[in-house]
Amino acid sequence: MSAEIICVGTELLLGDILNGNSQYLAQQLAQLGIPHYYQTVVGDNPERLKQVIEIAISRANILIFTGGLGPTPDDLTCETIADFFGAPLVERPEIIEDITHKFAQRGRVMTPTNRKQALIPQGAEILPNPTGTAPGIIWQPRPEVTIFTFPGVPSEMYRMWQETAVPFLQNQGWGKEIIHSRSLRFWGIGESALAEKVAPYFDLPNPTVAPYAGKGEVRLRISAKAPSEAAAEELIAPVEKVLKEIAGLDCYGADDDTLASVVGELLRSQSETLSVAESCTGGGLGQMLTEIAGSSDYFWGGVISYDNSAKVRLLGVNPEDLQQFGAVSPVVAEQMAIGVKSRLETTWGLSITGIAGPGGGTDTKPVGLVYIGLAGPNDEVKSFEYRFGTMRERAFIRHLSACTALDLLRRRLLMR
Amino acid sequence: MSAEIICVGTELLLGDILNGNSQYLAQQLAQLGIPHYYQTVVGDNPERLKQVIEIAISRANILIFTGGLGPTPDDLTCETIADFFGAPLVERPEIIEDITHKFAQRGRVMTPTNRKQALIPQGAEILPNPTGTAPGIIWQPRPEVTIFTFPGVPSEMYRMWQETAVPFLQNQGWGKEIIHSRSLRFWGIGESALAEKVAPYFDLPNPTVAPYAGKGEVRLRISAKAPSEAAAEELIAPVEKVLKEIAGLDCYGADDDTLASVVGELLRSQSETLSVAESCTGGGLGQMLTEIAGSSDYFWGGVISYDNSAKVRLLGVNPEDLQQFGAVSPVVAEQMAIGVKSRLETTWGLSITGIAGPGGGTDTKPVGLVYIGLAGPNDEVKSFEYRFGTMRERAFIRHLSACTALDLLRRRLLMR
Repeated sequence: MSAEIICVGTELLLGDILNGNSQYLAQQLAQLGIPHYYQTVVGDNPERLKQVIEIAISRANILIFTGGLGPTPDDLTCETIADFFGAPLVERPEIIEDITHKFAQRGRVMTPTNRKQALIPQGAEILPNPTGTAPGIIWQPRPEVTIFTFPGVPSEMYRMWQETAVPFLQNQGWGKEIIHSRSLRFWGIGESALAEKVAPYFDLPNPTVAPYAGKGEVRLRISAKAPSEAAAEELIAPVEKVLKEIAGLDCYGADDDTLASVVGELLRSQSETLSVAESCTGGGLGQMLTEIAGSSDYFWGGVISYDNSAKVRLLGVNPEDLQQFGAVSPVVAEQMAIGVKSRLETTWGLSITGIAGPGGGTDTKPVGLVYIGLAGPNDEVKSFEYRFGTMRERAFIRHLSACTALDLLRRRLLMR
Repeated sequence: MSAEIICVGTELLLGDILNGNSQYLAQQLAQLGIPHYYQTVVGDNPERLKQVIEIAISRANILIFTGGLGPTPDDLTCETIADFFGAPLVERPEIIEDITHKFAQRGRVMTPTNRKQALIPQGAEILPNPTGTAPGIIWQPRPEVTIFTFPGVPSEMYRMWQETAVPFLQNQGWGKEIIHSRSLRFWGIGESALAEKVAPYFDLPNPTVAPYAGKGEVRLRISAKAPSEAAAEELIAPVEKVLKEIAGLDCYGADDDTLASVVGELLRSQSETLSVAESCTGGGLGQMLTEIAGSSDYFWGGVISYDNSAKVRLLGVNPEDLQQFGAVSPVVAEQMAIGVKSRLETTWGLSITGIAGPGGGTDTKPVGLVYIGLAGPNDEVKSFEYRFGTMRERAFIRHLSACTALDLLRRRLLMR
């Protein structure tokens, strides 16, 4: 038994919209433990849609359609499915009544066009749409095939899925086995290096372990199949523990943790505070830190010292050092960190100065060269050099710079 | 002749990631005028992937694969395609060299695992990956079949598509009848209000006009079908002109313009400079401004005055006013703008102070209340009040705040 997701809509083929419905349904199927091996997108074209149905019933039993249920002539999903299975369409008076009622609520009169939405295949059940005019269907046209149709509007689809499809599938016995996952998140180690360290775990049957490369970071996803979330957690826990041991400090958190949230918790637990001084990131580090509600407990602010004059005026960087060593130098990074820390009287001062490109690089100071400064208690101050690569894009170098600064502070906060 | 997009990755079947690659490729195919009727998603499973290839070559000639080119054992796309068409894999020394070089640039050593990425089917051309380690291929395993493979990492895929795949397809004669579009971008007007103003234009046959709602902004997409970009531009120009006239100042730009880039050009053209003082956005406004390479010509920096102490120490906000009116008040917004402008000696000072939530709201100062201050030449200073709504998410309120600040400055710079 397995399911296939079929999204119908020429707008998907034109790239006008992002296919969020597939992602939603994929997550939902995983949670219910329903295997799902294929997703297909096809336009509003009856012949091609029929071919897709033909293929889908050869490899799946549950066919989930979204899109093409609207009132306009290009909405053909329901009649094409009926035609494929040789069933006549029947007008259902309860749908007409429901649509009429919804129009009346909005002070409008149902248009004749909407009558089309009341036609469903003989033998199908109505899958009610509480908010929109297009109902879906649940239909077993053959003993081994179950069909669900949903409108393409995400909010309508989500609600119909939750309120009717999920209970229906649970009644059929699904959801007894669920898939529950934990994503471990890593910074400072590449995908291949991490994969080599944890390679034996990729062969586990349950839970499974798989690596994913994100934006400058790597994740390991531990997925367990079990009768309940608690049982899945029990399977995940020992594997999570050993993976964390192998990875050591390179593993910074799990699931919704971010470098900023982890750093924030470490600061909060010690009642310490942080300020930042940003040059090439231009505010990106501050933004990451303040994405977290409640970050005002430990983040006091900072300076965007984009121009050299700002480094001198707002941070007290020595103009002669700027002249002699340049804005992108260890000395200036350290003075920026010290400057912001002392001006805002925080426990830690974290600074970034670098060349984000695409212009501004030289042979000795290429694009991607970034210095991070960290000033702390007892006059501690250090700078760190990074070369993120001359071919990387500006946005990515800025992202790596801010994340690396947070990661440096994280490692420092754990070292005591 | 038509193309099919095949995205490979179990993470797509689990709903872990949104399939943005399909959308990107779909848009690109439309622009080149390459018909495209199906998109398929399949997991990292050789048998199922082979079945997908079998189906795809029966209905399309150009197969575009993304995903599964990484160094780990579950990345199987390339070898599965080679196996399907009965071609041996060959290790290409130039790929080994390229990967070694990229690792060296980052101060790392290539791991043995990465050798796998140098294996490509005999007879295939390398599709170079300028930024990552996984190259793609362009391959005609049979006269009527052309295969492209790309890594799943979007930024790598986009660049490889633009730099190699597009010229290759154009050489093959594609792109003769192209679809060329212009997106007009609006701030300060809602989708339905804009739609009502320009409704008659939605019925045009060529170019077509369609509205899209973005993140707090609205776009009108004008799409023309023509033999060349120049011919399409000729169709688009008169419609663009009249739509801009109807919209007036609400239209801030087109295509890749951002509020920050438009403000930047206005400042640059007058040799004026800008500094910012940010409270609830925490650096987001500075980040938007510095996303633009060359923004150092007019953006000198600013202060992230997250904590009240930073407002007093770094911006000279009056502590008594802070006490009496609160940090989220017109007075404080104005003092922040004046403070940063005078400290950095810029033409303009722009400030934001507000309640981004989810906590911190009161009856009189609810979540979503934001004050924007603008200080300019001749002691000009003003503040503006916004109520972005108590139900909005923190990230969205912060985004709206930064964009609205830029839009305010844009409108002011145009008023002279």
